Amino acid sequence: MGLRVLAHQHGELARYKSGVAKVSITILLESGARIGPGKAALLESIRDGGSISAAARDMGMSYKRAWLLLDSINQAFTEPVVTAATGGAGGGRATLTAFGVELLERYRRIRDEAADLAADDLAALSRRARPEAGPKV
Amino acid sequence: MGLRVLAHQHGELARYKSGVAKVSITILLESGARIGPGKAALLESIRDGGSISAAARDMGMSYKRAWLLLDSINQAFTEPVVTAATGGAGGGRATLTAFGVELLERYRRIRDEAADLAADDLAALSRRARPEAGPKV
Repeated sequence: MGLRVLAHQHGELARYKSGVAKVSITILLESGARIGPGKAALLESIRDGGSISAAARDMGMSYKRAWLLLDSINQAFTEPVVTAATGGAGGGRATLTAFGVELLERYRRIRDEAADLAADDLAALSRRARPEAGPKV
Repeated sequence: MGLRVLAHQHGELARYKSGVAKVSITILLESGARIGPGKAALLESIRDGGSISAAARDMGMSYKRAWLLLDSINQAFTEPVVTAATGGAGGGRATLTAFGVELLERYRRIRDEAADLAADDLAALSRRARPEAGPKV
């Protein structure tokens, strides 16, 4: 049984498994603002953990970097995506707004549907891929 | 008629039109090598024009940069994607191999199908997008 057949039968598995090429999705807004896998993962971590500092730690970035990314997402839309309490007992607590949850769901739906529809093409390319990447350019 | 309906009815148009968010696709090979919109456009230009220097000029990059990108694509796979004649009368002529054409077709299929399936989500996000992007991070 070839890899193509396997990937077709187990699309859900293949999507997250190493051994097969994957597809990465970035939403490009008309303004030039971008929502890609990094920002989506940050939103997801905040939705689940309610903390910018914990999300930053999970993703191996500074608190400041995470804050700047969230600020840029907020500024990309006419309504906030994340609200944060700064200072005091609740300092660093962050919550996705209803629109933030919607944005994340839309991103994930596009990503998951794209992964499913791309499964056969990705499996075919994986069969011709070298195990080691060439120079990064 | 809302933007969502328009985008749904005219997915083919909306995909390339400004005024609506778009989706950008990058194929991530297991090795870490990436094939995104820039490399796909470069392959497309070479397929159509047969020239690395013309493709580089079209894309506003140096010949050397285009050459490095093509070399990295070639090194990502077990068979060549582009063949180029260097020096002499045919210097700079470049041709996609059959596999190169296949790679480009697979990339374009994933991209176009993803754009179609994402049309409603992208239109909904466009309605909430600000015309000016915030700070780039």
